[in-house]
Amino acid sequence: MKTVKIGILGLGTVGSGVYELVKKNWAIIRNRSGVHIEIVKVADKDPVRKDLLGIPDQIFTKSAYEVIEDRDVDIVVELIGGTTVSKELIIKAVNNKKHVVTANKALLAEHGREILSEVLKNKVELGFEASVGGGIPIIKTLREALVGNRIEKIVGIVNGTTNFILTKMTKERIDFKTALNIAQEKGFAEADPYLDISGGDARHKIAILSFLAFNGMIDISRIYVEGIEEIDIKDIQYAWELGFVLKLLAVAERLEDGVLVKVHPALVSKENPLAAISWEDNAIMVYSDFLGKSLYSGKGAGKKPTASAVVSDITDIALRMKNTLEYNKSSYSYLKSLKQMDFERSRTRFYFRFQALDRPGILSKIAGILGNHDISIASVIQKEMDEEGEFVPLVMMTHESLEANVGKAIEEIDKISEVKGKSKLIRVIEE
Amino acid sequence: MKTVKIGILGLGTVGSGVYELVKKNWAIIRNRSGVHIEIVKVADKDPVRKDLLGIPDQIFTKSAYEVIEDRDVDIVVELIGGTTVSKELIIKAVNNKKHVVTANKALLAEHGREILSEVLKNKVELGFEASVGGGIPIIKTLREALVGNRIEKIVGIVNGTTNFILTKMTKERIDFKTALNIAQEKGFAEADPYLDISGGDARHKIAILSFLAFNGMIDISRIYVEGIEEIDIKDIQYAWELGFVLKLLAVAERLEDGVLVKVHPALVSKENPLAAISWEDNAIMVYSDFLGKSLYSGKGAGKKPTASAVVSDITDIALRMKNTLEYNKSSYSYLKSLKQMDFERSRTRFYFRFQALDRPGILSKIAGILGNHDISIASVIQKEMDEEGEFVPLVMMTHESLEANVGKAIEEIDKISEVKGKSKLIRVIEE
Repeated sequence: MKTVKIGILGLGTVGSGVYELVKKNWAIIRNRSGVHIEIVKVADKDPVRKDLLGIPDQIFTKSAYEVIEDRDVDIVVELIGGTTVSKELIIKAVNNKKHVVTANKALLAEHGREILSEVLKNKVELGFEASVGGGIPIIKTLREALVGNRIEKIVGIVNGTTNFILTKMTKERIDFKTALNIAQEKGFAEADPYLDISGGDARHKIAILSFLAFNGMIDISRIYVEGIEEIDIKDIQYAWELGFVLKLLAVAERLEDGVLVKVHPALVSKENPLAAISWEDNAIMVYSDFLGKSLYSGKGAGKKPTASAVVSDITDIALRMKNTLEYNKSSYSYLKSLKQMDFERSRTRFYFRFQALDRPGILSKIAGILGNHDISIASVIQKEMDEEGEFVPLVMMTHESLEANVGKAIEEIDKISEVKGKSKLIRVIEE
Repeated sequence: MKTVKIGILGLGTVGSGVYELVKKNWAIIRNRSGVHIEIVKVADKDPVRKDLLGIPDQIFTKSAYEVIEDRDVDIVVELIGGTTVSKELIIKAVNNKKHVVTANKALLAEHGREILSEVLKNKVELGFEASVGGGIPIIKTLREALVGNRIEKIVGIVNGTTNFILTKMTKERIDFKTALNIAQEKGFAEADPYLDISGGDARHKIAILSFLAFNGMIDISRIYVEGIEEIDIKDIQYAWELGFVLKLLAVAERLEDGVLVKVHPALVSKENPLAAISWEDNAIMVYSDFLGKSLYSGKGAGKKPTASAVVSDITDIALRMKNTLEYNKSSYSYLKSLKQMDFERSRTRFYFRFQALDRPGILSKIAGILGNHDISIASVIQKEMDEEGEFVPLVMMTHESLEANVGKAIEEIDKISEVKGKSKLIRVIEE
C-alpha cells in the first residue's frame, strides 16, 4: 500500500468535490490502485465550507501557505483558480518539492512555460487532467495512450456553457440572449459569462491540448478566437436545412506552415459524431497516424466529473512517487516554441449569408467580388424575404477558400449599397 | 532517457504493425515520454515476414523460446494469439521475470486468473490495452483515469466485424448472409467468422472489461451470449421505424444480485450515441458515480490501431520499470470471484415479432399469454401481410419484463397453431 498525503487549496466547487470523492470512494481507489489517499491539510478563506463538508478542525487552515509549507504534504492540489495567487502558490509549492495537481486552465495556458520550467527544475510532477474536458481523460490519452502516434489534428467541443446555449438555440429555435438566460438560470453559465461565450475558455483549453499533441508551446495571443455572441438563430436554421449543425469548435492542426490553432463557431455535418454532442457535454476528436480518428466524450465540467480527473492525477503521481524522476532532454523539449501558422493563411469552406435588396444584378455583383478574390461558390440558396419585406437572405456555401481573401471580399460586399448590414460568415469544419 | 528492450513473439498483422510503428515513430515516442524502445529480438515461424519488414537477421529467430529466455529482453510482446502455445510462453516469460504485453483477449478471458497469479507471484507487469477496443484506450481509462469512480455499468460495441455487418444491413437493407459476404470480401470478417458473429469474441472482451470495472474475476461460462446469425432484416426495419437501431452489445452491470454480464443483439434508441457508431468502429460507454456517462470510440481492430495500444503498454511499463513493484492485498483482490447474477433473473424491455394468421382473437390469445407471465405490452403494431399473404407480422414493445418469464411466454406462444414458426425477440438497452 502506498499512502499519499495531499493538501487541498480551495474548497470551491471542485475542491469540495475532491474532498467528497476521497471520503466516499477511498476504498475503491485503494482496491483498484493500491494507493491510499490521505487528506492532511485543507485551506480556504471561508471556514463555513469546512463545516458544511464536515472537515475536522485540525486539518483545516485559512492560510494556503500553511499547506504548501507543510512537511507532511506530498501533493498540493491547487483549486483556487485565477492566475495570480494560484501561480505564486504553485511555484512556491514546487520549490518546496511538492508535486502539484491543478484544474487551472487559465494559469497553464497563460503561464505554462514558467510553471513547467519550475516543475522540471525541481524534479516534481504536475498533473492537469482536470484542466480540459472535466472528467474526460483527454490529457492522459494524449500523454500516454497515444504516445506512439504522430498527432495530426484535434477538434474539440471543450466549453460546456456555449455548447448548452447552442444546443438550446438549435433545438428550441430561440435566440442567443434567451438561451444564455436559461443557461444562467440552470447554472450552466456563470453570472459573468464573458470568458465562456467569447471563446476565451476554449482558447485556454486548446492551448493546453496543443502543447501535449505537438510537444511544445504556442503563443496564445496568436490563437484566432471568435465567440458565439453574434450567432443569429436564422443561420442555425439555414445551416440545419443544408445538413449542418453549429458548434463552437476548438481546433489545433499540424500543417505545412506550422501549427494552426483556432476557436470559432463552425458548421459540422450532421454525420460528424461531434454534431451529436449536446447540451453541456464536451467531446474531443483526435486524429493520429496509427490510431486514426478517436473520440472521447462526457461531462466536461462540474463538481463530480472534475473531481474524478483530479483524483486520477493524484493516484498516478502517487504510483510514480517513489520512482526517481528522470527529467531529460525530452521533457525540456516541451518548453520550445512551436512554429505557428497565421490564421489569415488558413483555408476552409465557408457559409455566407448576405441580406440584399431583391433587385436584378445583385447576385452577380456579389459573385463577382467573390470571384475576384478567388472564392469559388459551391451552392447558393435564396431564402424568403425577411420580416421588413425589403431584403432577401442569400445563403452561399463556398469551396475551400483562403481566410485573408474572404475577409477582403466580405469587406467589399458590405460596402455595396444594396446589401444591408454586416454579412454573416461561418466556417465549415470537415473531417 | 530510459531504454526498454523488447522481444516480439509473432509477426502477424499486429506484430508487423508494432515493428512498423516503432521504426517510424521512435523519435516521437522518445520525445513525448522519454522512453527509447529498442527491439532486440523478434520471433516468427516464417522468415518471409522478416524479409518483408526488413528486420535484420541478427535479431530474428524462428524460436519463441529464444525471445523469452533472452537475458536482454525486458518486455515480451506476445502477438501469437490462441490459448495454448501463447499461454505457455507467457507463463514462462513471466517466470523469467519478463514483463508481458499482449493483445490476446481469448487467453486473458479464459485463463486470466492463472496468468495474473503468475504475474503477481513474479512481481512483473502485464499490459493488455490491445485486447479490447483496438487502439481505444479503454483499459487505461478503467484502470487509471476512472480510479476514483465506482463503475456501475459498461455498454460496448466491441466487435468490429458484427458492427460492420449490422451497419451494412441497416443502411442497405440487405440480409445477413449478403452482408457477411461483403464483410469477408472487404477483409472485415475472417474466412471463419464464427467467433465474431456468434458473439464469442465480444464475450472475451466484456469479461476483461468486467474484471477491471468490478475488480474481480467472472465465470465466462455464465455470460449470456447470443450472436447475430439469426437477425432478420425485417426486424432491423421495423425497429428503425420505431426509433431504434440494432447493435450487438456487450454489457456488464453491477446489480443488487451481483454482476450481470451479457452479449446480445439489442435495440438502442437513435438518440443514444452508440446508435451512431457505424461500420467497423468500436465504442465503449462507461457509467460511473463521479464522472457520469463517458464514451470512448474509434477503430476497434486492425494493424495500426492495435499497434498503437501495444506501444502505449510498452511505454507505460518502461516508465514504471525501475520502480519497485509493490503487489499487495489490493492487487490480489483482483483474483477473487465476483458474485454473478443469472441472466434469467434480469429485466429489460423487449421487442417481439410474431407471425400470426390474420384471424380474430389471435392478438388477445397472445396478449393473454404475455399477461399471464407478467409481461406488460407498451405498444403493438400490425404490419402488412408477408409475401405468402397468409401471415401478418405483429410487432410489440414491452415494458421491463423478467427474462425467465419471457422465455416461458414465447415458448407457449410458439405453440399456438395460428402462429407461424419461431417468434422473434430482441432486447432493448436503454440509458
